[in-house]
Amino acid sequence: MNVTQIVDIIRGNDGAFQQMKDKVIKEFPLTITINGQDLITLVCSPMHLDELVAGYLSSERLIKDKNDIHSIKYSGNSVFLTIGHDTKSLSNKGPKIITSSSGKISGDVDIKGIHLNENIKVMYSTIYETADILSRSSELFKDTGGVHSALLSDYNMDFTLFREDIGRHNAVDKIIGFMVLNNILPKHKILLTSGRVSSEILLKTARCGIPILVSRSAPTDLSINLANRLGITLIGFVRGKRMNIYTYERRIDMTN
Amino acid sequence: MNVTQIVDIIRGNDGAFQQMKDKVIKEFPLTITINGQDLITLVCSPMHLDELVAGYLSSERLIKDKNDIHSIKYSGNSVFLTIGHDTKSLSNKGPKIITSSSGKISGDVDIKGIHLNENIKVMYSTIYETADILSRSSELFKDTGGVHSALLSDYNMDFTLFREDIGRHNAVDKIIGFMVLNNILPKHKILLTSGRVSSEILLKTARCGIPILVSRSAPTDLSINLANRLGITLIGFVRGKRMNIYTYERRIDMTN
Repeated sequence: MNVTQIVDIIRGNDGAFQQMKDKVIKEFPLTITINGQDLITLVCSPMHLDELVAGYLSSERLIKDKNDIHSIKYSGNSVFLTIGHDTKSLSNKGPKIITSSSGKISGDVDIKGIHLNENIKVMYSTIYETADILSRSSELFKDTGGVHSALLSDYNMDFTLFREDIGRHNAVDKIIGFMVLNNILPKHKILLTSGRVSSEILLKTARCGIPILVSRSAPTDLSINLANRLGITLIGFVRGKRMNIYTYERRIDMTN
Repeated sequence: MNVTQIVDIIRGNDGAFQQMKDKVIKEFPLTITINGQDLITLVCSPMHLDELVAGYLSSERLIKDKNDIHSIKYSGNSVFLTIGHDTKSLSNKGPKIITSSSGKISGDVDIKGIHLNENIKVMYSTIYETADILSRSSELFKDTGGVHSALLSDYNMDFTLFREDIGRHNAVDKIIGFMVLNNILPKHKILLTSGRVSSEILLKTARCGIPILVSRSAPTDLSINLANRLGITLIGFVRGKRMNIYTYERRIDMTN
């Protein structure tokens, strides 16, 4: 499926104007239906949809692993899943429609069962290098300026996985979905995001079990508070050879 | 209320690290309760909350004008409103929780009653100049890197209003709320946003009656389609003396 579209524009350069073609990013609304019940509509970029769905359901704790997904079928702008356990409890949530960039947070956050690897130690230069990979990987952004990206890396950079999406949360959910679908363990992983770190992104990372979260952009106060409570290493504003370490710096090896 | 918070960080500059203080943006969850019923939780920057609430309710077509708001009372992270007409129809929507950056879109968009001024004509240089005001006005962004901003301008720049918020949608809703609370007519106005133009932002602009929407960032395909259907002049990527005009260029005076 195409994730971009060509449109006619008029480009202005000071007082000079000319007609031309330009590429813009698509908004693809995807309604997730579970066991016959509409759960949510995510507005996303239509690629790696299996990962998006698995990652979203895992982030929301609706599935534990890929075996909970019994069937998955796409039709138009909908995806129909059957999952193994009872989903009656979903009904009191009602259907929700949220855009590409949204997620949920609540005052009393469910942080049960979050255990993060205390023993991982990552060279500081790895943070600069993985952030550089994140920046250089985004072809769609270069083309359209309209997407967010995320990168999963092993602590020693043996493995990296890049994903992008019109939605900041979706790009992260695609990474998490890849981990769910391929039984990737989180304990030696670093997650990088191009976007701001809100409490919701922090929580997704923690629930998935990744101990280090890195952003090219700003964290919020709530995300820092949560990172402190949950034991996540939170790093922001990684640009070139600069970064801000907000919490749990003990996982970063700062020796030269 | 403070919109930022000071935190301890470790700043890395290549291999050199030092402890210091830094300012981060707050996430403030605000639950809107109407006539005794929870409507939504917006995660926002806690300033101009009256405008945010009025703008959100107007964008969602829950109020027509400020007279529909009979009372408004804040308590902690909640705001309790009584509005003049029946709100039973809200109950089937159920409470929603969305973050700072989210909104709603749906395939069949309600565009009844949208009439935009066809006769407004704006000098192209006004687009560059107002975008420049938008960029220069954002103190919070400079401090924290974590916010979006929006600017309302009269077609001849007699009047400009700047607002910012952690949420792209909220910054726009604050502008719309200001218009609702002060009976500002939209037909000679331009709305500028720092963020990407999704279908939801486009729809907010159209419902409010503003004929020209300008962004420093990218529009999506759906927002361009909607702008074409609704008759909005949509301009993106305004940076310095450059811009892309996507739709209804007839409202822009391109003569020198």
